[in-house]
Order: sequence, then structure tokens, then C-alpha cells
Amino acid sequence: MSKQITKILLNESEMPTRWYNIQADMPNLPKPPLHPGTRKPIGPQDLSAIFPDELIKQEVSQERWIDIPEEVQEIYRLWRPSPLYRARRLEKALDTPARIYYKYEGVSPAGSHKLNTAVPQAYYNKMQGIKRLATETGAGQWGIALSQACTFFGLACTVYMVKISYQQKPYRRTVMNIFGSEVFASPSNQTECGRKILEQDPGNPGSLGIAISEAVEDAALHPDTNYALGSVLNHVILHQTVIGLEAKEQMAKVNDYPDIVIGCCGGGSNFAGTAFPFAHDKLVDGKNVRLIAAEPSACPTLTKGKLSYDFGDVSGLTPLLYMYTLGKDFMPPGIHAGGLRYHGDSPLVSQLVHDGIIEAKAFGQTAIFNAATLFAKNEGIIPAPESAHAVCCAIEEALICKEAGEAKTILFTLSGHGLLDLPSYEKFLDNKIQDYNLSDEEITKYLKNLPQV
Amino acid sequence: MSKQITKILLNESEMPTRWYNIQADMPNLPKPPLHPGTRKPIGPQDLSAIFPDELIKQEVSQERWIDIPEEVQEIYRLWRPSPLYRARRLEKALDTPARIYYKYEGVSPAGSHKLNTAVPQAYYNKMQGIKRLATETGAGQWGIALSQACTFFGLACTVYMVKISYQQKPYRRTVMNIFGSEVFASPSNQTECGRKILEQDPGNPGSLGIAISEAVEDAALHPDTNYALGSVLNHVILHQTVIGLEAKEQMAKVNDYPDIVIGCCGGGSNFAGTAFPFAHDKLVDGKNVRLIAAEPSACPTLTKGKLSYDFGDVSGLTPLLYMYTLGKDFMPPGIHAGGLRYHGDSPLVSQLVHDGIIEAKAFGQTAIFNAATLFAKNEGIIPAPESAHAVCCAIEEALICKEAGEAKTILFTLSGHGLLDLPSYEKFLDNKIQDYNLSDEEITKYLKNLPQV
Repeated sequence: MSKQITKILLNESEMPTRWYNIQADMPNLPKPPLHPGTRKPIGPQDLSAIFPDELIKQEVSQERWIDIPEEVQEIYRLWRPSPLYRARRLEKALDTPARIYYKYEGVSPAGSHKLNTAVPQAYYNKMQGIKRLATETGAGQWGIALSQACTFFGLACTVYMVKISYQQKPYRRTVMNIFGSEVFASPSNQTECGRKILEQDPGNPGSLGIAISEAVEDAALHPDTNYALGSVLNHVILHQTVIGLEAKEQMAKVNDYPDIVIGCCGGGSNFAGTAFPFAHDKLVDGKNVRLIAAEPSACPTLTKGKLSYDFGDVSGLTPLLYMYTLGKDFMPPGIHAGGLRYHGDSPLVSQLVHDGIIEAKAFGQTAIFNAATLFAKNEGIIPAPESAHAVCCAIEEALICKEAGEAKTILFTLSGHGLLDLPSYEKFLDNKIQDYNLSDEEITKYLKNLPQV
Repeated sequence: MSKQITKILLNESEMPTRWYNIQADMPNLPKPPLHPGTRKPIGPQDLSAIFPDELIKQEVSQERWIDIPEEVQEIYRLWRPSPLYRARRLEKALDTPARIYYKYEGVSPAGSHKLNTAVPQAYYNKMQGIKRLATETGAGQWGIALSQACTFFGLACTVYMVKISYQQKPYRRTVMNIFGSEVFASPSNQTECGRKILEQDPGNPGSLGIAISEAVEDAALHPDTNYALGSVLNHVILHQTVIGLEAKEQMAKVNDYPDIVIGCCGGGSNFAGTAFPFAHDKLVDGKNVRLIAAEPSACPTLTKGKLSYDFGDVSGLTPLLYMYTLGKDFMPPGIHAGGLRYHGDSPLVSQLVHDGIIEAKAFGQTAIFNAATLFAKNEGIIPAPESAHAVCCAIEEALICKEAGEAKTILFTLSGHGLLDLPSYEKFLDNKIQDYNLSDEEITKYLKNLPQV
């Protein structure tokens, strides 16, 4: 019997040396971000208080390829290129003719894809002479990634962690502490914005929107400090394209190409990082490939939100972004995939959904934990609840293939492992996981209050 | 600038297809195990109540190479070959001329090297028609590995988990549950031995020795059930030699060979798995390579114990093994490296220490957590507290090189990640880690009561 390959590996010399910028190839660019005060398009100078010049350039660049600095590549090589797996045991368990591949980003020392952008963000800030980065984190994946990246480049790091996660996920905080970061439960008394909220509501459990407001305020007030965001923005998504670029090379090694590409989608960086290099083939070469963003039905931004200008945070400090949104005041139910609990989405992803290049599907909590457990029992890896949305979508597509007798090729990204999410699995095993069926009224409630531009 | 390689990878086709059996090359074999009742050397029939024939054969085999079944290789390919890293950033931080390499076993879905033997043990039991495996686990690494391996081969799995760990490390238990195992806090009321202990001492916190007694009793009483051990025995160590065999191939790819090989050592399987393929070169080819077993100074079996016959468990159900021991009643302080809290050691490792082929060093808790944190900040990976002993030893040797201005090559195995050990790191960051300086009286106390043979 000839041995069947399970992992498709690339050598370090095969690691991409350039990121792919989809702005070069989109049929329609998203409308520009607007200044929160004037509501006029923002210019580079509006961002320079909190971002370094190189990232501002990348945010608006329309160059197709952008070089990855050697210093960033050096850190990437701690875990990149990441492996692509053929999920042979899962295919067998599903009894599907589909070929299922997954790109595994949990091999990063941060445990997720987030480090792909944390490293260049820390690097460009270091080059600009910045001493400290401030950021927000929800479940903690992004906070861990930025903490590590800052340590690697000798920067200090301050993380505003959503208070409820700070209390419920102490281990994620411990990891940030190991890497030397300062972590505050948000709302905190470190910022004007935090103090104001605490005054009115001392028991406020926090939200991503509040934590963003705190981090942005911290960065804006301290000249040696910048702000870093883990998703949504164009430069973040640019950095994540290493995922899809590698995956394409890896599939070529086994002479395969996906019919369907899947990623879980909150702010959009993991999905876009996976899908955009394939979107290139669809847009430029006319390839017939379906690109599916898998989101939680409890926070159905792409499937039930509205394409509109909205703020990125709760306080209205950030520029207005043109994106699918549920409204900045929408408070998603407390699902276990904390990384997907965001009211908005990447403007690039939003535009491509609007233009029919990308499709979106929503999945409930019971379904995603069932899928994740089946995956773990066959492939060994316990997925992060966020990543479980992609697993669930891939299984659904594989079962459609089985029904139709079609041997399609399915690729998804497993964006991170779930080893710091085990209390969620414990709840699932104890049948204590809840599904949230949001009514149309609940969903449209906040859409009526979107900012006028 | 030419890019410096960080990870040395092997393709799946380069994965070893045979395990290395050091019994073929040892100058002196360890004295044979004795029956706990008769105190005469045990024969295969004495073991057949709890082990399958193939493992009993491997236990006593003196064949140098033993084929790895294709079914086992298929599962190994989910994570093997594991990467070998050049720790360039750590070298720089230490400012040492030494070249430091580490073999990383934390990439296994179980998070540690334990899966290397769990998989063949489950496989051989499955082939023998066994339906269920019973085992003990301390900190939980072994329980997770066996749970996964049993799931892969469709076996049921019962884990007796040391009660104090069961309560303190609920997440490890959750992982076992995800993989479908039944987990009991030991001492439990599932066994005669457990009930007897609970009767006398209802608050007994459990120990590895007690849990072994329970698992062995369970297996012995149920014809469809066998017992599985995660370290110490010859067949376990045999399976772990994939680590060192791969590492040797990987070092050859960069034209290097270690002057010093280091592994952490509790029961000995990770250390031996790493070191024995290099011990082969030392014994057969006269290679000049130091092999260092790194153990906790709170449980200094090799550095302060006695080479003698002793029981493997507390109740005296197991055969008597000829090994370095601190006495079966020695209760090691509650250090965070739970996997290294064992009174005895592998008879093969013990014999080679006695014969001067292997050396041993002991390290305290503060030192190993300091080393682990330095490692994490530079290499990104948070080591398991057990593995941190190897990190600490490697750093010590690298600093000796710096002092001497010698560019030695140091190889160590990072046997697992510490993502399920974060409460221990939290204690360390809060300065609540204790060092245990055992007096000679404490150490020799139980050595006086070793069984007479």
C-alpha cells in the first residue's frame, strides 16, 4: 500500500515574501472611511496619531503585492509556513466523496492566525520609534498575539480586555502576563472613556466596542504610544493573506484546487486572509471557486446586517467605516466564540459580499460544537469555538457533496486551537450550550439608528 | 542577507518506519522484573492478564529495530515528523556561542510526546480484540494521549486521575471527556483498592501509585480490558525513540551533531526516547556525546535515589522493577511538574545511569520557571513545567559554553506545551512558587524500607 500524505508542508524557503493586496483587483472599492467629526473622507494625517506611516500607506495602497520585511519573515519562521492537512479521517467518518483540506493556523505560538498581523504591526511601529502599543481584546486571542509580537520587538504592550472575559478567561490573561503585557479589565479607570462608563454603571461587563474606545484614547493621548487593531482594517487583512497564499502553493503540490474555500468570519481577517488569494483567481482568471464566510447566527453581520456607514467602536471615536453592520449598539448574545462577537465587518469583505464575489452562511452554537467534537475525535485537534464555525460549514458542504455524489474539493482554515476554551467545551458536554434565535425585530432595532452621513 | 533556517522539517516519507530498541546494544541489561508474590523473574504469562502479546514481546525483545505498523504510522502522520527548531533567538538572548536545537513534541494533538506510545499501545490492544483500556494519570498528559489514541482505534478508555489533579486541573479532564473517556478521581469507589483507601482516609488526595493500583485492578478483573502505562516500561520507551531518530535525521540535514542531548526525566520515556538513538552512537560507534536526564530536585530519583528492586505502585500490585527509586512510599512535594513526580524510573535509563552512559542533573522550581519564561519570550512557545526542566538544563549548558567560549551543539526535547498549566505560571508570576530543599534524612527515610528480594 502506498502511503497517503496527511500533511502538506512547505519549506521556509517557500514561504511567501509578499502579501497580496486585493484592492488592486476589486471591481468596486469600498467607500472611503469618514472622519467621525466632519464626516468627510479621512486623510493619512487623521490616522497618524495612532498608526505608523507604513500601516497607513498599506491601508490605502492599491499595489497588488507588498513586500514582507525580512525582520517580519524572521519571526514568521518561528511557525510559518503552517501545515495544510488533508482531513482523511474526517472524510471517512462523514463517508463523503469530497476531499477536505484544512490550513492549520493554531501552530503559531499565539495559538491562532492573529500573530500574522501582530508581528508586522509591532515591527512597523518599532521602526517608527514607538515605545508602546495599546489594544483591546475580547476573548484574548488578539491580546496574546500582540503581547508576543511586542516582546519579540522590545515594545511595551497595554491590553484592555473586555471585563467579562478578563474574569472568565484568566488563563488568556496569564499568557499575556508571561509575555510582559499590562492587562486591564475594561471598562477600566485608566481612561476618560472607561471612567465615564464606570461612573454611570459600575457593574458594566464591558464590550469590544468599549475596549476599543479605551485603547484608542490611550494611544491618542500618549505620543510614544500607538494603537493596534486585530481585524477589520485593510492592512490587517493584507497581512493575513499569507494564509491563503501558502494554501494555494500547498494545494498545487498535490495537484488540487478548491471548489469551495471557507473561513470563520468575525471582523473578517481570518476569512479574508484565507479567501482573498483565491478571490484573486476568481476576479482575475475567472476561476470558479465559492468563497464562504462562516459567521455565528447570534451575530449575523453579513447574513442579516446592512451595508452602511457605522462606527467601529461604541463611543464613536473611530472613523466611520462602510461595512455590513448590526449597529454599534447591538450587543451580541454571550456566545463562546467571543472573537466573532463584533457588530461590524471588514469593509473589503463587505464590499465583496455585496458584489456577489463572496457568500456568507450563519451557524448556531450547538451545531458548531457538534462539528468541532466530531473533528477532534477524527483529526485530534480541538478547534477554537471561532474556528468551529468553519469546521461546521465544511462538514455541511461535504455532506451536500455526499448527497449529490460529487467529489468536490473543500478547503477551510482552522484559525486556532481551543485549548484555552475548554470551559466552553465542558458546558457543551454538560448540555448547557444555548442557541440564540434572534428575531428580525431584535436585529433591525439598532439598524434604525445608524449614523447619518 | 541569506535567510537562516529556523525549523528543520522532515517530510512524511522521511518519518522513521522502525523503532530503536536499545536492549540490543546495552553493555549490561537491567536485572529482570520479579513477580510481586513469588519474587521470581516474571514470564510473559504473568503479564498477559493486562497487556497484549505484542507489547509483552517488545518488553523483552533484544532485536535492534522493530517495525512500526502502517496503521500506527498513519496516525503518527497527523503530527509527525515533529519539527526540530534552531533556537536562534534564545541563543542571542543568552549571548552564547553554543548552537541550541530543540525537538518540539508539543505539536501532537495531545500536546505532548505521550501520544507516540499511546497510539501503538491502543493499536496492539485493538488487534488482540481488547475493547477497553484502563490507565492512571497524574497531571493528565498521559490520560489525554491515551484517550485520543483509544478514540482513533474505537476503544473505550477509563482513566483514574489523581484526585488532587482531578480537582485542580479540570481542563485536562475536559479534554479526556471530549475524546469520550470515562474519568474517575482516584482513589475512587470503582475498585477494591480505592474503596479500601477511602474507608481509612476519605480525604486522601490520591497519588500516581494509588491510581496505578486502581487501573491495574480494573484491567485484571475484566477480561475485555487491558492496562496501559505511559512511561517506565521498555515497550513504552521503545515507542518514544521516534523522537531521537527523527532528531538525528534533522540534525544531519544541517550537517550538525549534538555534543549534549537533554531531556526531562520522570519515568524516563521522553528522555530515553530522545537520548537512546544517540546512546546507540555512543555505545556502538564510540561517539562522544553527553546524555543528560533533567529531573526535579523535589523528586531526585536518579541523582539521590538508590538502584534497587522496588514496586511501581503503592499497593505492591505491580512486578518489582530494578531501578533507581526513592521508595514507593516517598511522597514527592506537590511541584507543578506533576509528570515528574514519580518515585522510580525506567529500568533501562537506570541501568545506563549506573553504567556511566547517561548523567543526571536536578533543578528547582524557581529555576525551571525562570528558564521557561525566558524561553517563551524568545521562542514564543510556553513550555510545560515538565519540559521546563530540559529548557533549564539546556540554558545552563549554554551558559557554561559562554563562560568557556565553546561553540558546542546542544539538543533538547521540548516534550510538551504548557497551555494547560497556566495556573502554575500565574503562581510563578505572583512569586508564589516554592523551592523544596529535601534533606538527606527525608530522602533516605523511605530507602530503608525497600522490599527485600
